[in-house]
Amino acid sequence: MWHDRRICDLLGIEHPIIQAPMAGATTPEMAAAAANAGALGSLGCAMFAPERIKHEAQQTKALTNRSINLNFFVHASPELDEAKASAARTNLAPWYETMNAGNVPDAVEGHFPFDDAACEAVLEASPKVVSFHFGLPDNAIVERVKRAGIVVLSSATSVAEARWLAERGVDAVIAQGYEAGGHSGWFLPRGASNVAGTMALVPRMVDAVPVPVIAAGGIADGRGIAAALMLGAAGVQIGTAFLTTPESMAAPVHKTELLNASGDDTMLSKAFSGRNARTVVNDYASDMDDVKDWPDFPLVNAMTGPLRKISAETGRPDAVVLWSGQAVGLNREATTAETVERLVAETGACLKRFA
Amino acid sequence: MWHDRRICDLLGIEHPIIQAPMAGATTPEMAAAAANAGALGSLGCAMFAPERIKHEAQQTKALTNRSINLNFFVHASPELDEAKASAARTNLAPWYETMNAGNVPDAVEGHFPFDDAACEAVLEASPKVVSFHFGLPDNAIVERVKRAGIVVLSSATSVAEARWLAERGVDAVIAQGYEAGGHSGWFLPRGASNVAGTMALVPRMVDAVPVPVIAAGGIADGRGIAAALMLGAAGVQIGTAFLTTPESMAAPVHKTELLNASGDDTMLSKAFSGRNARTVVNDYASDMDDVKDWPDFPLVNAMTGPLRKISAETGRPDAVVLWSGQAVGLNREATTAETVERLVAETGACLKRFA
Repeated sequence: MWHDRRICDLLGIEHPIIQAPMAGATTPEMAAAAANAGALGSLGCAMFAPERIKHEAQQTKALTNRSINLNFFVHASPELDEAKASAARTNLAPWYETMNAGNVPDAVEGHFPFDDAACEAVLEASPKVVSFHFGLPDNAIVERVKRAGIVVLSSATSVAEARWLAERGVDAVIAQGYEAGGHSGWFLPRGASNVAGTMALVPRMVDAVPVPVIAAGGIADGRGIAAALMLGAAGVQIGTAFLTTPESMAAPVHKTELLNASGDDTMLSKAFSGRNARTVVNDYASDMDDVKDWPDFPLVNAMTGPLRKISAETGRPDAVVLWSGQAVGLNREATTAETVERLVAETGACLKRFA
Repeated sequence: MWHDRRICDLLGIEHPIIQAPMAGATTPEMAAAAANAGALGSLGCAMFAPERIKHEAQQTKALTNRSINLNFFVHASPELDEAKASAARTNLAPWYETMNAGNVPDAVEGHFPFDDAACEAVLEASPKVVSFHFGLPDNAIVERVKRAGIVVLSSATSVAEARWLAERGVDAVIAQGYEAGGHSGWFLPRGASNVAGTMALVPRMVDAVPVPVIAAGGIADGRGIAAALMLGAAGVQIGTAFLTTPESMAAPVHKTELLNASGDDTMLSKAFSGRNARTVVNDYASDMDDVKDWPDFPLVNAMTGPLRKISAETGRPDAVVLWSGQAVGLNREATTAETVERLVAETGACLKRFA
């Protein structure tokens, strides 16, 4: 049923569907189930030390012999601005008090850079695919990954970013639209302009770069996949639809909120990590909506960690991250495998209606 | 080629494409050319007194005997908040000085309400379709329009708004996504949440309301139309693609900026009218991006009028409205008729690739 097999051939998969790598929610079980169902299974490795990268990849490979994808954040190293950290502390204090969460922790980097050690771990793990968010690591590292025969992907939120990535050798670009849940991958300066929605972003990107474009953002059923194909996308990346599966390690309260969300109730918030990320609206994110000036990403992660943890553990949606895309209203309770099967069947039915 | 003929039948048109009513840019020549090419031709009447409504409709009808649409804004009457007006004056003063535009004018209402007089004019003009933005007028007026056999449409930016409109008798709902140019039609409270992109909005709306859904926002070529159909839309409304036609009375500098825009360079701004509207980024909108608290819509229109006029007349993009959707990068120089023909041909070609 897939007329355009570029992504299937490139990634060695049956269906041009990528189960999105969602750091903190993906598991070896999810990635393996997605892979075994014919999609690309992904692990969000943004917060993994090299040993953990190898361990999780190994666990996944024990459950599937199909293609998997390891994803990494490659943001610039944060600089600690004491004034911003102090302002954040002041803004956070009432929330720590309300939630009885102790003192606001220091602003520290909690992510691992994609350095030589991470690269070594990846080469040892030997996934079919590595994808990056917020740009690309140094050219030398990209080259090293590619020389090992690993397919390299990265996200672009504008045509300029897509061109930048294509010029640096990515094998395909993920067009991440405004609708997407979690962190927006933007990495080139964009002034006051807004990130474009998927509908407007994909065709322009398809016209601009010579590599295949994978659509992401606002896609949660076969209608969205068929629409992405019409826009010229060679495949799709879908996250939110997998967050409510039993294989997802998203907090139970996160899953509940997603299943109750309409999709008209999400917002971009910098208040969890320091960078714009899409969450279901909750009291914390609403409360902080006017605070625009946070310490550099991902320093804020450390400052909000205990708050989010207590909120999650006590089953209160108030201050936990509720990452979600704008199509969340289409989420249903199902396993990862069932979700892939449903997406494929729905896409076929949708295309057939117009055949 | 149109499998789903609900919108064609409802509106009495050949192709399920609505040339969007863009107040200040549409002309009888544009509406008639769109209609004669088989789309629904529309006139943006938001700033027309009753006499002007009749006159423009008459001029259009002299050029086509096909369906036309008259569009009206039905925002709540603004209340003048002196503190906000004074703050706006302070923010605007440097711009008036730089542009040598005289004194900042008073904050006054420049739009006409959709009252009995407007309704009379519409009934006399007797268009096939009337569409509303920002909700609906009083039930009695809606009933009066419908009893005259006129099809009633309105825009929704959320599922809740779509339900609200469907319950009040609209014949079809326009799902206006985040990508759309000009004024966002939102009218129900939405807290901190963002308007959803077209990709995420349309399928959820299709599932929620019993009337046909027309997709708007980020659609500028046949790929976008085919995508909208996949999402379940019964038709599309397209604006920006028509702004650069010779039939458009958008300022020449506006047309030039649109033809040079990428689509990654637009932003929502409240700084022109007091309500969020999407424009190509320019110095004025960037400069005012942090100002969130403007006088009620549309009072700001009057306060920014001379600034925009001088900017337009002197061919400077700095302070003119550059309304634009996020698919503007796909715009090409062509007539209104050529644009409709291109959209239809491209949609056919796109659907055929997957048949």
